[in-house]
Amino acid sequence: MIAKAAQRMIEERESKFLIPSEIVANVQEDNHLDHAFLVLTKVKYAKIPVLDSEQHFKGLLSLAMITDTMLGLNGIDPSRLSRMKVKEVMQKDVPVITLPYNIEEIMHLLIDQPFLVVVDDEGCFTGIVTRREIMKSVNYMIHNLEKQYLVDEKIGTKADLSYNDK
Amino acid sequence: MIAKAAQRMIEERESKFLIPSEIVANVQEDNHLDHAFLVLTKVKYAKIPVLDSEQHFKGLLSLAMITDTMLGLNGIDPSRLSRMKVKEVMQKDVPVITLPYNIEEIMHLLIDQPFLVVVDDEGCFTGIVTRREIMKSVNYMIHNLEKQYLVDEKIGTKADLSYNDK
Repeated sequence: MIAKAAQRMIEERESKFLIPSEIVANVQEDNHLDHAFLVLTKVKYAKIPVLDSEQHFKGLLSLAMITDTMLGLNGIDPSRLSRMKVKEVMQKDVPVITLPYNIEEIMHLLIDQPFLVVVDDEGCFTGIVTRREIMKSVNYMIHNLEKQYLVDEKIGTKADLSYNDK
Repeated sequence: MIAKAAQRMIEERESKFLIPSEIVANVQEDNHLDHAFLVLTKVKYAKIPVLDSEQHFKGLLSLAMITDTMLGLNGIDPSRLSRMKVKEVMQKDVPVITLPYNIEEIMHLLIDQPFLVVVDDEGCFTGIVTRREIMKSVNYMIHNLEKQYLVDEKIGTKADLSYNDK
């Protein structure tokens, strides 16, 4: 359980959480790696979603997953990029979330993920929720908590802190 | 100003914030890009620090900054990697922080940075503070806030919320 006050204040910015799929760069699982190499070199995200032809979310792809196939005995070799497909190198074990948002779940998953993929009931890619937007909401919360709530140390805690000051 | 209660609780995990320089992969500004390509393909971070020969922090480097030099008229060409140096393509406008930590500053900078570079008074690289560790501290704070503090809605706010429920 997380503090109700914190949860409510983070939820106040909820409408801003989603970066919709239309403006998130993605690649298809059957794209060849040379195409994905170009996309990931030009977009700002370190990882992007991989979709199938019906917009179902299939995995995530980073440049390192592609460049790893270029390391050979004779140095850096791009020749395999035109033969290999995205689905051969992508990361498949990716947590996804669905609407409505569960703040506690989002806060927990974002410890290990730079962004969370949002899917609909059919598994189609809806958009992403980034650490960036959640960090903004946490900043909003810690800046405004004492404006909307009275926050007082509990007696026992106060005694402990003063003891630690010695 | 951020809420004192939130600040104190985030600070409780402060000793865990720093990932020390000894265990953070880095490259030298005079390294050639083929070496940096190998390092960034094998480490988990999307960006790594660039240092000079005396450990001063000089910038950040991502795989995309390297692969951008490989895009030519004839497709993907690695030949320039052995001639170009890290300092020619690295990102130089990078905020840094120094000890002691300023929680409000860290929370603000981490909106736009996946991690913060920590330097000493001479500008030498000390380590990094990641969004991951700060997300852990924020989770600790929102899970324990009501154990250590009494948090009550202020009257005006409560009235507003009940009005919105209708």
